[in-house]
Amino acid sequence: MNELQLVERLRRLSPASKELTLGIGDDCAIFQPRAGEELLFTTDQMIEGVHFTRTRSASSIGERALARSLSDVAAMGGEPKFCMVAMACSDTKWIEGFYRGLLRLAKRTGTALAGGDLASDNKFHCDVMVCGSVPRGKALRRDGARAGDTIFVSGKLGKPWDRKIEPRLVLGQGLRGSASACIDLSDGLSLDLHRMCVASNVAAEVDRVPVFRGSTIERALHGGEDYELLFTLPKNAKPPSGVTRIGQIARGEPGAMTFQGRPLAPLGYDHFRKAT
Amino acid sequence: MNELQLVERLRRLSPASKELTLGIGDDCAIFQPRAGEELLFTTDQMIEGVHFTRTRSASSIGERALARSLSDVAAMGGEPKFCMVAMACSDTKWIEGFYRGLLRLAKRTGTALAGGDLASDNKFHCDVMVCGSVPRGKALRRDGARAGDTIFVSGKLGKPWDRKIEPRLVLGQGLRGSASACIDLSDGLSLDLHRMCVASNVAAEVDRVPVFRGSTIERALHGGEDYELLFTLPKNAKPPSGVTRIGQIARGEPGAMTFQGRPLAPLGYDHFRKAT
Repeated sequence: MNELQLVERLRRLSPASKELTLGIGDDCAIFQPRAGEELLFTTDQMIEGVHFTRTRSASSIGERALARSLSDVAAMGGEPKFCMVAMACSDTKWIEGFYRGLLRLAKRTGTALAGGDLASDNKFHCDVMVCGSVPRGKALRRDGARAGDTIFVSGKLGKPWDRKIEPRLVLGQGLRGSASACIDLSDGLSLDLHRMCVASNVAAEVDRVPVFRGSTIERALHGGEDYELLFTLPKNAKPPSGVTRIGQIARGEPGAMTFQGRPLAPLGYDHFRKAT
Repeated sequence: MNELQLVERLRRLSPASKELTLGIGDDCAIFQPRAGEELLFTTDQMIEGVHFTRTRSASSIGERALARSLSDVAAMGGEPKFCMVAMACSDTKWIEGFYRGLLRLAKRTGTALAGGDLASDNKFHCDVMVCGSVPRGKALRRDGARAGDTIFVSGKLGKPWDRKIEPRLVLGQGLRGSASACIDLSDGLSLDLHRMCVASNVAAEVDRVPVFRGSTIERALHGGEDYELLFTLPKNAKPPSGVTRIGQIARGEPGAMTFQGRPLAPLGYDHFRKAT
């Protein structure tokens, strides 16, 4: 199978999209935005030896690679539109498995495959960009948390890696107009809450966290890759069902956090701390 | 310098954009498209050991990484809007040099830096996605070449790697409404012309090619990374200045090509041929 044949095959397998005037196969994809909408853009890498090892199945990596970016779209309250996939690998079977997993989730979430880039490399790495949309002015941001707001998370935290990621798209869309701030939990609660607090210029007091069965408090507080939503609501707002209240936003040094009254450090995963 | 500090710095250095409601720093960037425009999307990787070696300067790699995607936008007649940069590297100095080169070209072409992803990896690799825009229905495609059309290229072909890439944005925009087909020369004239002919269901007869001084006909026909535009105009249309007529589109087996009357094979660079 050469590049042209693979591209032809992907073109046939991509979910349909009315707004994608031109999909895979030209120098660029062409997208026709709908009036009254803003577009969301996010991109995430999956690198062999950094984010995963080949003990994982190719299809689970493909699914996760897309899920990570979809989770960012969910955190902004968006609806996914399309993705672009840049990938380097030298193993055709692995590439097929990767796309099988990615396209399965793409189909389930209505995300078209608009294009990408392929290169041959002995180590697998990919970058998945997702474009989503929100009604104008309705995107959820991380900088709107205010002292007195209540903090919630979806799902349980500290999940093991082999759990499927279900991007919280429906929850995120339902929070438009009510959440004062929202972020997705990709690098661990402590680091992602810290980021939200720094952006919002506030502090946070965490009372409890919902721990995934068999996991630990430590992992629930600092472990990465939960891909749940962390969000704040004004004090007396009614939360959607199935979420857990974990604390409240407070005045104080921006980014300062406590857990059950004691200081909580932002220990989650910072890719870059290693590099300095 | 940790991830947050690097991100802060990039945010300050990014060219301004009115349509970018929210740039670097949240889960997604927010973009407000203008009415009456379609958006173009393309993505290109640069991988150490595949596309370049560290004998090149970091800033030249950063510039080239953006230029490759801008060249795709040029080939569709587009105006660049913003880019997203996903990068893996473990050398802070290299990253700074990379962004210096990339942002220099971004500034020159009015391309905002909307966001990206950073990871630490011992081998450098990056993926640059660019979003551009065109008035609705005006994008140049590769599938519109018709028998009798004249074939042109910009610049000289067979350039050495260390030449700067100047994405042909002004030329591409000027071809809107007149060119019947357009593609950028990234993988070599023979392969890219073949792709245009296959997409357009036509054959091509090449009479001559403009060879870069010191290069060879072979390199001009089959060498990659020229980043010039290859386009077709209806028979009697007046070409823009500074381009070279190289042949004409003909009836025949889709993708079949001749050079000075003899068969021309599509020998340009196919990343994937190696992988099978």
